[in-house]
Amino acid sequence: MRILTDTLKRLTDEKWINLFEVEYRQPSGNVAKWQFASRKAKPKFGSGPLAPDAVFIVPLLATPAGPRLVMTREFRVPLGDYEHSFPAGLRDGDETIEETVRRELAEETGLALTRIGTTSPPVIASAGLSDESAAIVFVDCEGEPHTRNTEQSEDIEILLLDFDETCRLRKSSEKFSAKAWLVLLLFESLGRLAWPACWK
Amino acid sequence: MRILTDTLKRLTDEKWINLFEVEYRQPSGNVAKWQFASRKAKPKFGSGPLAPDAVFIVPLLATPAGPRLVMTREFRVPLGDYEHSFPAGLRDGDETIEETVRRELAEETGLALTRIGTTSPPVIASAGLSDESAAIVFVDCEGEPHTRNTEQSEDIEILLLDFDETCRLRKSSEKFSAKAWLVLLLFESLGRLAWPACWK
Repeated sequence: MRILTDTLKRLTDEKWINLFEVEYRQPSGNVAKWQFASRKAKPKFGSGPLAPDAVFIVPLLATPAGPRLVMTREFRVPLGDYEHSFPAGLRDGDETIEETVRRELAEETGLALTRIGTTSPPVIASAGLSDESAAIVFVDCEGEPHTRNTEQSEDIEILLLDFDETCRLRKSSEKFSAKAWLVLLLFESLGRLAWPACWK
Repeated sequence: MRILTDTLKRLTDEKWINLFEVEYRQPSGNVAKWQFASRKAKPKFGSGPLAPDAVFIVPLLATPAGPRLVMTREFRVPLGDYEHSFPAGLRDGDETIEETVRRELAEETGLALTRIGTTSPPVIASAGLSDESAAIVFVDCEGEPHTRNTEQSEDIEILLLDFDETCRLRKSSEKFSAKAWLVLLLFESLGRLAWPACWK
């Protein structure tokens, strides 16, 4: 498969996201078109490394009553409804992953990053639809959660869940981000809220 | 937060995916605009249940040498590169989840579905970007893998991985779908390729 990169066309002229079309040559030799969404001014094709568009933060907070998973219940305009997920956000300019994690965690939850743990490479949310990628970052944090720092466009509630609550939530019929549902399933499978020893 | 649904505008006129814009009222009373991508002719907003656009299949194949995780390495046009993921695809018309799973598994891997296990509700890939949702379905399957049934637009290699290979792949710098990377991390954390007893 090969992208005919000089056929790339931007079909819209928006600030945060655009629709693009590009032609590609199939293994048979046929040339076909693909439309996709991108947050980039000019999508890059090829085998080079990705720069993550966003971070997706999975925070554990130590409390006197035991560890709590810090989740969000956030209104998402494309759904017109609330989604259960984790603190997350787009990178500003050339921020490092750690800088974005620290900023978004503080903005969305009021909590302070204390340690960055296992971090994914930039992983793609839905590669048929978009080149959008995010680093998934497991972190420890401290402080008292609040939402006084959220932006005006954000409608976010913070959930501090113990292990039993994460299991009940995973089995519920709430709306979840795909990543969040899998993180809940991961902790349920482990049987506790703690970073697995094998991740170190 | 409230969507002003009668402001919904489709900004493009494509077959598989379009860009939309809608106005919404922020908690402060301000009205703002949001652009997002959707595969739907007319996105639905609100608290009703989602119908999944797609399925994302995590198959285990029993072999004489032990269980193997069935992954894909597929060329994705928006990346212009290969992505490590799992068999997946869009629902055709009003297919049930099981019908889509059976069809996509056969098309992309040549394997036959034998059992549907844990299944997520429709989960959202990237809710700021799109309303696209998928059911994540853990399955058992049988047969000899092959790619003779793939569509002309698909360039897919099948990987049959044992536990050690899944752990090595998770730590590599390959490109992954977000869901696939988390599934690999889940099995790595469990220490084996098997469905956790607690899922039953």
